[in-house]
Amino acid sequence: MSSHTRRAAGSGPGSPRISRRKFLAGAAAAAVVAPVRARPAPLPHGPYDVIVVGAGLAGLTAARRLAAAGASVVVLEARDRVGGRVLNESIGNGKIVEAGAQFVGPTQTRILALAAEVGVETFKTYNDGNSLLYYQGALTPYPATGFPDVPPADLNEALTVLLTVLDPLAAQVDLHQPWASAGVDLQALDGQTAETWKLAHFQTPGARFLFDVIFEAVIGCEPRETSFLHWLFYIHSAGGILPLVTTAGGAQDSRFVGGSQLIPLRVAADLGGRIQLGRPVRRILQDGSGVAVETDRHRAFKAGRVIVALPPAMAGRIAYDPILPALRDQLTQRMPMGWYAKVEAVYPTPFWRSDGLSGQVVSDTGPVRTTFDNTPPDGTPGVLMGFIAADDGRVWSQLSAPERRNAALGSFARYFGAAALAPIQYVEKDWTAEEWSRGDPVGLMPPGVLTQYGPALRPPVGRIHWAGTETAEMWTGYMDGAVRSGERVADEVQAGG
Amino acid sequence: MSSHTRRAAGSGPGSPRISRRKFLAGAAAAAVVAPVRARPAPLPHGPYDVIVVGAGLAGLTAARRLAAAGASVVVLEARDRVGGRVLNESIGNGKIVEAGAQFVGPTQTRILALAAEVGVETFKTYNDGNSLLYYQGALTPYPATGFPDVPPADLNEALTVLLTVLDPLAAQVDLHQPWASAGVDLQALDGQTAETWKLAHFQTPGARFLFDVIFEAVIGCEPRETSFLHWLFYIHSAGGILPLVTTAGGAQDSRFVGGSQLIPLRVAADLGGRIQLGRPVRRILQDGSGVAVETDRHRAFKAGRVIVALPPAMAGRIAYDPILPALRDQLTQRMPMGWYAKVEAVYPTPFWRSDGLSGQVVSDTGPVRTTFDNTPPDGTPGVLMGFIAADDGRVWSQLSAPERRNAALGSFARYFGAAALAPIQYVEKDWTAEEWSRGDPVGLMPPGVLTQYGPALRPPVGRIHWAGTETAEMWTGYMDGAVRSGERVADEVQAGG
Repeated sequence: MSSHTRRAAGSGPGSPRISRRKFLAGAAAAAVVAPVRARPAPLPHGPYDVIVVGAGLAGLTAARRLAAAGASVVVLEARDRVGGRVLNESIGNGKIVEAGAQFVGPTQTRILALAAEVGVETFKTYNDGNSLLYYQGALTPYPATGFPDVPPADLNEALTVLLTVLDPLAAQVDLHQPWASAGVDLQALDGQTAETWKLAHFQTPGARFLFDVIFEAVIGCEPRETSFLHWLFYIHSAGGILPLVTTAGGAQDSRFVGGSQLIPLRVAADLGGRIQLGRPVRRILQDGSGVAVETDRHRAFKAGRVIVALPPAMAGRIAYDPILPALRDQLTQRMPMGWYAKVEAVYPTPFWRSDGLSGQVVSDTGPVRTTFDNTPPDGTPGVLMGFIAADDGRVWSQLSAPERRNAALGSFARYFGAAALAPIQYVEKDWTAEEWSRGDPVGLMPPGVLTQYGPALRPPVGRIHWAGTETAEMWTGYMDGAVRSGERVADEVQAGG
Repeated sequence: MSSHTRRAAGSGPGSPRISRRKFLAGAAAAAVVAPVRARPAPLPHGPYDVIVVGAGLAGLTAARRLAAAGASVVVLEARDRVGGRVLNESIGNGKIVEAGAQFVGPTQTRILALAAEVGVETFKTYNDGNSLLYYQGALTPYPATGFPDVPPADLNEALTVLLTVLDPLAAQVDLHQPWASAGVDLQALDGQTAETWKLAHFQTPGARFLFDVIFEAVIGCEPRETSFLHWLFYIHSAGGILPLVTTAGGAQDSRFVGGSQLIPLRVAADLGGRIQLGRPVRRILQDGSGVAVETDRHRAFKAGRVIVALPPAMAGRIAYDPILPALRDQLTQRMPMGWYAKVEAVYPTPFWRSDGLSGQVVSDTGPVRTTFDNTPPDGTPGVLMGFIAADDGRVWSQLSAPERRNAALGSFARYFGAAALAPIQYVEKDWTAEEWSRGDPVGLMPPGVLTQYGPALRPPVGRIHWAGTETAEMWTGYMDGAVRSGERVADEVQAGG
């Protein structure tokens, strides 16, 4: 049974119907996501109750919630697929690798709930045996459940500062209104880069190295590219530095059976004809009576409200009529996407496991500085996945395709031996080269942005509402944050903005 | 005689003609800007040799130079006027105030040359008597040719650090390839905000205050918003900190008779029908045979090459097919516009002059922290001009129109007395609210951008060339830089890219 037919069971004429009047008044049923119901379809171009721009997890979650509450919804997606920065790529035999977001952790409860609703299960990220540290030319194993084996004094400094200075400071940043956090010197924290803070608070090369590698792997930038305050917010949003960086029990704890994109694919299947692919939104017009959303085709889509479920940098590329308030417009100028690529090499088996290796690496040498064992849950084929981010990414992306492959496999071989040089398949995804993402995993905030422009992240502008993981209070930057933002914006729309 | 007919003297059938073949081979005549010649017009939508996007000084300069070399050119401008961030506003009786860029200094030789070519003269900025410092609640006069009278130890520190530390460091930043400057620690300089550097190098409140007020007035941001390396580049690009900030002999030395917009207006008159107003460019397509440039109307304009003469943030809002290389695309995500407004109050006479005041103020209290006497050259009416920038601007812009006026006039009155509260006219321009600028005076570079993305500022992408003051090596951010960029890009196009 396809995911579509399997999920269609709750639909049909027998399902309860909620009138548009009831929806617009904020139906009580909205709080509970019921199976998506059939209702008479509006004309193809509307008017709809709500248009959602972007069929990533944020947009799909919002559309699902609104449709369940009885609203008429259409989702306009520029790509020919759903999922945004969540993407399965087939490696044959019904197996996939994930080219985008993939991990899930125990406190990421909203993506876990959504996955459960659409019948997508999880399994543990492979985390047995030893991980590897490649540092100053030497390869050192360390228990996968432990910390990279930099010199003891360096590790001591790293953990002391991260856990007793950084974490408590991050905990003081208000998740709802970071720009109004009490008890911290906001101007000082937002006036410096994370690099400046690093240099002031870590003296050992090993501690500084760990700080850098966390940055690159977690948000696709170097510490110099972001405000230290935004980094604090990011840490608090994840519940602390350990939840952010650890595998077992942290943000990398588990993966989704069938691949993370199975979630948006199933949500989209439920939404059926409400999803319109290949419809890049070029302009959004609003007046007192509603919104008109223009794509490349001649006829605009009409609705009462529109949800823009894109990262700010992409939302800023839509034309707005009337133009957006300056604070909101400049926000879209000031949240660039990170630079992030994933490479995956497929082997007949996960050969490193027999060497007692977890497949996880932390390295001071690029282009791949962080790896994971991305083998499917049944154990074959073996898949090594690596992140190429920030400075490494900017160099690697400009290589030719054969050079990129050689560089990526060369990194794998440095950690796992010559066997890594001969995969049966190689898959790469450079998200900066994707027209409808232009970067990954998340929009960054350079210094001064969070305090001055943070207040423009979420509030609607008239009939235009904003979603996307960048707007999330918890697990911003993650699939979980995207889902949370979709839920929040759906509630906001139902409450009348 | 209108500027158009006056300038048309060099045109006509008798002028020498340069064939397209000769143009495309890089005509020798290109180095000298001759009067713009008539040549058979292409069909309205081309094909042209070159399409220029944006009729600011950069685009107009490029178009003028190319047309003079015999190229067929069309300039597509989104607004219903030319000049971009250069704009005269009438105050009646044939007098104007300048809502955008207005000052010119002696080393800004390319804008001066262009002004001379189109017959626009200069006059000295009023700089007689005393300027005023408003600091910590007190108003203190100081000679207009001197330095603000902060406490002596503070001024001593300010000048010592600015002139003996900052200036020499700035001079080490390579103007052609700042990201490859020798002898400086690029990563350290680009890894910190100018705020971080300020706090480390200035200990007195007065010195820190002067550093801030320079930032706000010069580039429309707080020191926390930019990379220190970009600030060093900006200083070197202007020839040093004193050329940047001083009136007599510096960047504020002179003004243009008739207003700065007279220059683009006259250049545009010379170009005549080559300027197409009200044509926002939405998409640029290129292939091996040429470019197609789409506006809101159905038919695309065709050409061999296109020059995008917009700041990066605005260039990033055009769709490109094929998409731009990631480094170039991300550059457009990472150079936000400053936040900048100008307010001008018109009085029957420049009453402050009789009090021995220059009309210039430096203040620690907003919203107006910097003022100038913007009186026309004949001495009437009296005009006070003030800048409202960065943090002040973000607050002020969100006020109602009467509140904005009251706040601006309240600042003027704080410095010049109650007479300033009752102007006969009040003019304001908030550039962040302008659809086709969305900020002013220049695109900023947060930390990490110049070293990593600077190399993508100027090189053409296939048939697409980039101009705008942000691409200039000298006087970037100024009208002079815009003209230089237009000259550079015209030469680049003629040389075949």
